[in-house]
Amino acid sequence: MRLQKFRAQLAAKKADAAIVSTLINIRYLTGFTGSNALLWVDGKSARLFTDGRYTLQAKQQTSGKGISVQIVKGALYKALEKYKDKFKGKPVAIENQRIGFTLATEIKKLFKIAKLDNTIEVLRMLKDDAEIAAIRASVELNAKALAKAIKTYKPGMTEMALAARIDYEQRLLGASGSAFDTIVASGPHSALPHANPRNTEINKNGYLLIDMGATLTDYKSDLTRTFGVGRPQPNAKAIYDAVLEAQLAAIDAIQPGVEAQKLHEITSKTLRKYKLDKLFIHSTGHGLGLEIHEAPRLGTGDATVLAPGMAITIEPGVYVEGFGGVRIEDTVLVTDTGAEVLTPLTISPKHWTIVG
Amino acid sequence: MRLQKFRAQLAAKKADAAIVSTLINIRYLTGFTGSNALLWVDGKSARLFTDGRYTLQAKQQTSGKGISVQIVKGALYKALEKYKDKFKGKPVAIENQRIGFTLATEIKKLFKIAKLDNTIEVLRMLKDDAEIAAIRASVELNAKALAKAIKTYKPGMTEMALAARIDYEQRLLGASGSAFDTIVASGPHSALPHANPRNTEINKNGYLLIDMGATLTDYKSDLTRTFGVGRPQPNAKAIYDAVLEAQLAAIDAIQPGVEAQKLHEITSKTLRKYKLDKLFIHSTGHGLGLEIHEAPRLGTGDATVLAPGMAITIEPGVYVEGFGGVRIEDTVLVTDTGAEVLTPLTISPKHWTIVG
Repeated sequence: MRLQKFRAQLAAKKADAAIVSTLINIRYLTGFTGSNALLWVDGKSARLFTDGRYTLQAKQQTSGKGISVQIVKGALYKALEKYKDKFKGKPVAIENQRIGFTLATEIKKLFKIAKLDNTIEVLRMLKDDAEIAAIRASVELNAKALAKAIKTYKPGMTEMALAARIDYEQRLLGASGSAFDTIVASGPHSALPHANPRNTEINKNGYLLIDMGATLTDYKSDLTRTFGVGRPQPNAKAIYDAVLEAQLAAIDAIQPGVEAQKLHEITSKTLRKYKLDKLFIHSTGHGLGLEIHEAPRLGTGDATVLAPGMAITIEPGVYVEGFGGVRIEDTVLVTDTGAEVLTPLTISPKHWTIVG
Repeated sequence: MRLQKFRAQLAAKKADAAIVSTLINIRYLTGFTGSNALLWVDGKSARLFTDGRYTLQAKQQTSGKGISVQIVKGALYKALEKYKDKFKGKPVAIENQRIGFTLATEIKKLFKIAKLDNTIEVLRMLKDDAEIAAIRASVELNAKALAKAIKTYKPGMTEMALAARIDYEQRLLGASGSAFDTIVASGPHSALPHANPRNTEINKNGYLLIDMGATLTDYKSDLTRTFGVGRPQPNAKAIYDAVLEAQLAAIDAIQPGVEAQKLHEITSKTLRKYKLDKLFIHSTGHGLGLEIHEAPRLGTGDATVLAPGMAITIEPGVYVEGFGGVRIEDTVLVTDTGAEVLTPLTISPKHWTIVG
């Protein structure tokens, strides 16, 4: 089905065939999860090339999808020579935005090249039912892991220890790993949007910002919560509430037909009411799925039109140098009529919460 | 110093300058650890291009190394245009084995291209004192994490739970993460050299194979131990002892001047005494450092001559389908006179050990 949709795009790219070399896109089109593969797709056939380690796995994972499997010894691209005569002079599309130089050079010796650009990435924006179920499960696992980990917080715990605990809980719940390096940042350190956890005690009176994601059956989740620790300064809650208002306003505005950048306008506008918009220094969110950052980008200039089946994050933030930062993030599904927040809010509530 | 050694190699590649685009190689040559960079090196100057997020960090990390830093808005390669006139017609080398197609295409528009091939990777084989200290610390941390995690083993524990515990202990000890996906494989499952941990109980009477590595200050470690669980079958220890004999024989043979493939011959020959050589289905080891797999490869065909400062793994294994697998691995430093096993053997002993 995914392969059929991809094939239908080849004409638009003026290509008679395509060679897919990015493993994550091969995973998407074929289901194959091995670490070495090339995929050939033309109007009639599709063939997956891999090596002997994956003989059984490749057949099982691609079964019933109209894909033949060929086991290759040595460099996989050499097996593409078989198409050379039949496709002589005909354009064969490659993933020009992702392919390596060496492989592209070899393929150019065999075929006339066309460009896929972001064809597969655009297809991947619209999740099918199996993908939505996988993202939903990943999001739920992630929320549970945060709930378990935050219970272990005790004054004196380091940021690194809490980050390690989060990753441990994700794994105990069945995740194959974290979707990205877990962020645990407290006090003034939380004012860095991509702070690395430090080997220092969590600040006892301020913010505790946690940004985490899980990988489950290859699908990602993304969740940020900002807690108060101990006795935060009075304005900590005021900033928090402004960010929450911005986040809820963006979620409210999600509708099929709305442009991605519109959601960023809404969060920015809400924060402007509190004179906090200049301290919001990143975009409002991003698509996610097999990768943690996928299209669309919910920022200025992205005119992607939201459509049912898109899975996106909504994550405005405000960062006050020397004081701290607040970010609140959920993974959200665009539905036929609006949005469904996939984060289970009973497990990960969004009201201002003090820990420790 | 590393930059000087690299510069000295450019003549051999018939290049007047080089553009380094692989982040790990930029990290090696400059110390810069950011996620977006290009490095220009010519006979006289070196310049690191990165973006505004790294203004301060780039200056700090490259300080005193004869490298200037330029902050670029947008695509970094555009900043290379400044060299276009001065290097017109002169060969500029790129990392042809690693560079992406898009970037290579843009660079080709500006310069006549030469190939670096594996120039930097060859330099990286010989670790300097700072690197050896970093690898040693990573190896020690990793051994401690195994010792702590294996103590938590109880009958009924799943492979995934033990793998999660290992990663957690690594992080609590200060690792930034695992060097690769931790392998915990028990019973017949251990016969797969790259088994993924399963969500099933560790087999109560058989092998328990654990292959794990840590990342500490960007440097990797690698350690495999195979334990007996409960009451393994009688021949389990016999196979274990044969693998251990092969591993010790290879370590004994490490000397500057010996070819990498010779160590593989030695492990294979030792296992042949026990008619187990056909069940040894991978190479004997690999270099490691900033990456978990670096040159050399201790397998048939690698004529790399061992030299002091190389950090390599020695990891023979025997895999019996339906029964289980044994692998024993240490990280080893080639010294002036032989080898130093970096694994602290008091923490990670190699004699046959039963757990549970």
